[in-house]
Amino acid sequence: MKTLLLTGFEPFLGHPINPTEQIVKELDGKETGDYQIKGKLLPVDFAEAQGQFVSYMNDLQHDAVISLGLAAGRECITPERVAINIRDGEPDNKGNAHQDALIEENGPAAYFSTLPIRAMVEELNAAGLPAKISNTAGTYLCNNIMYSMLHELESRNMTVPAGFIHVPASHDLVVKGSRAMPSWSQADLTKAIEIMIGVLAGP
Amino acid sequence: MKTLLLTGFEPFLGHPINPTEQIVKELDGKETGDYQIKGKLLPVDFAEAQGQFVSYMNDLQHDAVISLGLAAGRECITPERVAINIRDGEPDNKGNAHQDALIEENGPAAYFSTLPIRAMVEELNAAGLPAKISNTAGTYLCNNIMYSMLHELESRNMTVPAGFIHVPASHDLVVKGSRAMPSWSQADLTKAIEIMIGVLAGP
Amino acid sequence: MKTLLLTGFEPFLGHPINPTEQIVKELDGKETGDYQIKGKLLPVDFAEAQGQFVSYMNDLQHDAVISLGLAAGRECITPERVAINIRDGEPDNKGNAHQDALIEENGPAAYFSTLPIRAMVEELNAAGLPAKISNTAGTYLCNNIMYSMLHELESRNMTVPAGFIHVPASHDLVVKGSRAMPSWSQADLTKAIEIMIGVLAGP
Amino acid sequence: MKTLLLTGFEPFLGHPINPTEQIVKELDGKETGDYQIKGKLLPVDFAEAQGQFVSYMNDLQHDAVISLGLAAGRECITPERVAINIRDGEPDNKGNAHQDALIEENGPAAYFSTLPIRAMVEELNAAGLPAKISNTAGTYLCNNIMYSMLHELESRNMTVPAGFIHVPASHDLVVKGSRAMPSWSQADLTKAIEIMIGVLAGP
Repeated sequence: MKTLLLTGFEPFLGHPINPTEQIVKELDGKETGDYQIKGKLLPVDFAEAQGQFVSYMNDLQHDAVISLGLAAGRECITPERVAINIRDGEPDNKGNAHQDALIEENGPAAYFSTLPIRAMVEELNAAGLPAKISNTAGTYLCNNIMYSMLHELESRNMTVPAGFIHVPASHDLVVKGSRAMPSWSQADLTKAIEIMIGVLAGP
Repeated sequence: MKTLLLTGFEPFLGHPINPTEQIVKELDGKETGDYQIKGKLLPVDFAEAQGQFVSYMNDLQHDAVISLGLAAGRECITPERVAINIRDGEPDNKGNAHQDALIEENGPAAYFSTLPIRAMVEELNAAGLPAKISNTAGTYLCNNIMYSMLHELESRNMTVPAGFIHVPASHDLVVKGSRAMPSWSQADLTKAIEIMIGVLAGP
Repeated sequence: MKTLLLTGFEPFLGHPINPTEQIVKELDGKETGDYQIKGKLLPVDFAEAQGQFVSYMNDLQHDAVISLGLAAGRECITPERVAINIRDGEPDNKGNAHQDALIEENGPAAYFSTLPIRAMVEELNAAGLPAKISNTAGTYLCNNIMYSMLHELESRNMTVPAGFIHVPASHDLVVKGSRAMPSWSQADLTKAIEIMIGVLAGP
Repeated sequence: MKTLLLTGFEPFLGHPINPTEQIVKELDGKETGDYQIKGKLLPVDFAEAQGQFVSYMNDLQHDAVISLGLAAGRECITPERVAINIRDGEPDNKGNAHQDALIEENGPAAYFSTLPIRAMVEELNAAGLPAKISNTAGTYLCNNIMYSMLHELESRNMTVPAGFIHVPASHDLVVKGSRAMPSWSQADLTKAIEIMIGVLAGP
């Protein structure tokens, strides 16, 4: 059976919880379609997350890689189309911030996701769940992990499907964090990711 | 056993479905706390909805009255605090529109909801569902029904708990309507309304 | 010549400036149509603002009263339709907060603005400035001042035009406050208020 | 004296006017810093705009190239950081739409703007005008023009400063189009672009 590396993030920027953490815990070990899911958590720390992520990729020689991140304020599930070679924005959980910095000094400006993002959106819609392709993963750690993942695979000439999916806030996050924003139940979020993995495994 | 009149609306303004219709159908006949729920549907028609609503109130002599409406674009469940004596805005499903018109020529400027809206919000939050009090029900048919309901009860010197609750779009509505906005699963919406009725029935 | 009392607020809730303060300073003493403008500033303090406002009304026996407030996040000029008998929400600048409290123990649920709000919106649009009627002034100090103003005039059987206008953020506020939101130039804001006063004075 | 090619677009997607058209007309022929501005208008037509744009670039051998586009819904001036090799989204004014299509079959995933976008944002803020860097120019014609511009310059090994700036709606557009969104006065928009060109010309 093929394996899929699925990562989520710990809480960040003052959010009390991160729904991607729970998705990854719930799906770890499950079999969906052709894949057994290996769930892993990443720290919100520019200095550590990238190295830890690459070591997860190395250890397990996965047949597919999907990273998940919280996009607080988005209304629906948004697979990302592209990662750009930039670190910029708010400080990470260690207090380190970057401005207009390159992720890879000699890397290209961007990499496209190699996930079937259009089919994933269509499958979610068919299942009654709102989704659309996003054209920016931002310039924070989510974009960094997506860029590093695709750069690493490119460097090794590996063509396994790989990419990043942003999810909206969970109801829990809104209630505990007392910040108004669109939210889904945790169950809906997890179900959506399972459906998307199902597309990956598809015919 | 006490009875509770629960109304929803048919689809309107180009939305292909109205999640309040399904909530009302699912809860019709159910017993929650002290109340048996009588679910009824209203047309999006200024000329008919109000009369039909009052006749529902008359027929059944309910011990509580809650009307539901869709607030496309809102992120969470919002019990309304106040209804104002105004009809204004987009045309209804019959094509009739009003501008700055009074609902009741000699009615007061506004009525406050007599539902325990603060306790309802707290109970939803305790159940992990985002909710907050809204201070405007708009000036369209939702506000009209809420105002008429409270005016009717006032006219009869009746003090049964009565008010209006706006709900966000359902996932289904977003997918079928192809308009991006915050959405909840239909199941979450129905559960939220049940929890709120439970508060009403409370000690 | 008739006089018009025009009030603005000092900065609040962490905003470094309040564009209504500058509007009031710029228009103080000016003559627009039939009115000479008397500009006054109010503190963001539930305990003091109301009393101070009523004393301004008393002192000068104005022929019209308009209060201005900042609605951070709104996109355009919004004359308010209605003020409700509620104090609720964030703490004021003295740290005092209220929840679901009445402004006037025996006052009605709401008062409608007696300004020509529809004509004001139309005149702004004709001048190329976006505007629309708002149906909620919130439950914070802006609503409080509007309610108190209209309650005071009602108590004295006075029928001078009176109401509240919310304005969007100014460019300056966004730049200095580092919070992203819609904004207008200060000059556009001041011009809009002058145009609205011109409507008041109209034939 | 150096020359700068400045392009705007005609109206599109049902917007009655396009504020970038007016900016370009107002600035055409003006001298700002080291540059004389050559203003040109582009059609909202995937098939024609790109070729026309490249011919403008060829004809005049400009020392800098800036394209402007309307980002309806954005709150402030947003110089774009990156253009991606994708055509996707709504139909253009000729009714042609694309989905997940490449702009250049053998082009890289993305190009970064070569304008001093950080300095431009800082200069606007210093002048009291809200601005921030945007990390997505979308996948419609604006992104297409930005990508084509940078691809063309790269192909010729030319290093003139080049990029794309999105502007918010103008007040006029909101009033004439009857769609609520953040807006600036046309004068503020034109002033902002002039300030940004001034940065380009800088020391």
